[in-house]
Amino acid sequence: MQVLEGQTLSPPPIWLMRQAGRYLPEYREVRAKAGSFLDLCYTPDHAVEVTLQPIRRFAFDAAILFSDILVIPDALKRNVRFTEGHGPEMDPIDVDGIARLDGSRLLQHLEPVLETVRRLRGALPPETTLLGFCGAPWTVATYMIAGHGTPDQAPARLFAYRHPKAFETLLMLLAELSADYLVAQIDAGADAVQIFDSWAGVLGAREFEAFAVKPMARIIRSVKQRRPNAKVIAFAKGAGYQLKDYRQKTGADAIGLDWSVPLDFAVELQKDGPVQGNLDPMRMVAGGVALEEGIDDILQHLGNGPLIFNLGHGITPQAAPENVRLLVERVRGGRA
Amino acid sequence: MQVLEGQTLSPPPIWLMRQAGRYLPEYREVRAKAGSFLDLCYTPDHAVEVTLQPIRRFAFDAAILFSDILVIPDALKRNVRFTEGHGPEMDPIDVDGIARLDGSRLLQHLEPVLETVRRLRGALPPETTLLGFCGAPWTVATYMIAGHGTPDQAPARLFAYRHPKAFETLLMLLAELSADYLVAQIDAGADAVQIFDSWAGVLGAREFEAFAVKPMARIIRSVKQRRPNAKVIAFAKGAGYQLKDYRQKTGADAIGLDWSVPLDFAVELQKDGPVQGNLDPMRMVAGGVALEEGIDDILQHLGNGPLIFNLGHGITPQAAPENVRLLVERVRGGRA
Repeated sequence: MQVLEGQTLSPPPIWLMRQAGRYLPEYREVRAKAGSFLDLCYTPDHAVEVTLQPIRRFAFDAAILFSDILVIPDALKRNVRFTEGHGPEMDPIDVDGIARLDGSRLLQHLEPVLETVRRLRGALPPETTLLGFCGAPWTVATYMIAGHGTPDQAPARLFAYRHPKAFETLLMLLAELSADYLVAQIDAGADAVQIFDSWAGVLGAREFEAFAVKPMARIIRSVKQRRPNAKVIAFAKGAGYQLKDYRQKTGADAIGLDWSVPLDFAVELQKDGPVQGNLDPMRMVAGGVALEEGIDDILQHLGNGPLIFNLGHGITPQAAPENVRLLVERVRGGRA
Repeated sequence: MQVLEGQTLSPPPIWLMRQAGRYLPEYREVRAKAGSFLDLCYTPDHAVEVTLQPIRRFAFDAAILFSDILVIPDALKRNVRFTEGHGPEMDPIDVDGIARLDGSRLLQHLEPVLETVRRLRGALPPETTLLGFCGAPWTVATYMIAGHGTPDQAPARLFAYRHPKAFETLLMLLAELSADYLVAQIDAGADAVQIFDSWAGVLGAREFEAFAVKPMARIIRSVKQRRPNAKVIAFAKGAGYQLKDYRQKTGADAIGLDWSVPLDFAVELQKDGPVQGNLDPMRMVAGGVALEEGIDDILQHLGNGPLIFNLGHGITPQAAPENVRLLVERVRGGRA
């Protein structure tokens, strides 16, 4: 939280995207008894437990709510399902479907998630930051249009060119619902929130402005109007050079950096405020020198400014928990 | 060719990545009778024909040899195959396999491709530039390691962390063979060559230097030492901010830009020399205003410097040939 206010902490706080996940045996145990993946997200007993697991093991400085960015399309009755080995799927939406979307029951549908947040704030040590989150409208829309993940989200790019008005309607509805959802998470006890724009990198410059920056700015403005102390981390994966003025344009307090962001550019971005990132998740799998070198690089470049140490994308199932321990120790040992 | 020497032409020359491809009915006809995809690449009659098809239809300013970046692993006996709906596959390689790679029969294996280049130079109008090409070592290596395409080439990233020496050996062997192959293409009649680093965007900064920049620089140096007038276009897809000094570091004459490169950044890059790109291929599918607006944006920003008009990635099978005609007419009409 202090870093989100612009302070430099040494050592920097650390948490990992997908820190509650399949690399942990205790997670896989809960997952196995939870039914579907969405059942896991919507059952506070389970969701609280898996959120706390990595905190118990590694005493991360932040816990992130266990949930998924696709709970919003699920609340919009898009028939979201997660099938092993297939990635997420849902019913693809068309222009008429967009016109018929009804978000009025969003928070009722997501009440179990909000209950999870409430219980987490009670269960976590006071010094552990609790992060809520949602997906950014562009990223969520890519799945809603295609009905599944694709290598470069061509279906959504094409839809946006063909049906600009309907696509704008979809993005603005998602922005509004996302803001409501984040405010509800903050009211339930989240100390800060992160907005994931995992597919920002496939957009051209005009589209980045219209589909990534504009809805993100709208969410952040709406959240901050209603909860002036709210802190927001915006993560536009793959945005490359477009990150240059992303913080200023979106109003984000901190910006997440994926592992492809060069550290000299990251240093420039850090001059304007806190950054979060950006170790290659494959270094967590490789371990050894590759892990140490990656950590030290980040600490050397970014350790003297406001930094939240994290990976540049989610930790993968193949990462060894021992490597996570090494990571946390090295970051906290301040060896750099 | 004049643009590759740094001249500004108005209108700019135009060609499209994958311009010989499935969006053309006459291509699909040849494809259907050619046997496997590699048979198509290795049969000069067919490969010449499909290379010429888009030149006949649209009088592009450049023809690009019809082939594939994976002919080098095929020459290295990695059992490359293209199965409908699966993307390319080959036998994944390990550390021992890398040590055993034998590139001594590369040019014998690729003789049909070189024969295609010879025939093309004879068949093409003299004013049409003939482009040869190969894949960049990093991109080719990602397929060799994984044995197939993946969303973010995690297997190759991980392999490189775990086995840095073997990976360096692989990249340097691929660089050497690629240089030999490009020199042979130039000797067979190619006027210039393009090197495709389609997966440069998944690399962190250190790895971008070691795996993308260094082998690319090595190929270009080797080609230019042997053929001092050779012109090279380097295309590092998704490299974002790292393109900043990519031209200087690699020695490329022109740099290819994917559609996510913002045009204000492209203008900066063009100050150092020719650029090629960068229309979103989905605009070719959408047509109409989306197509016109995309073309005009590029011409307005980049039309007053050395530009080769192209897409930001290959044209897709869904693109209508009529849209290609509209594109060529609009670029040549100079409306901007």
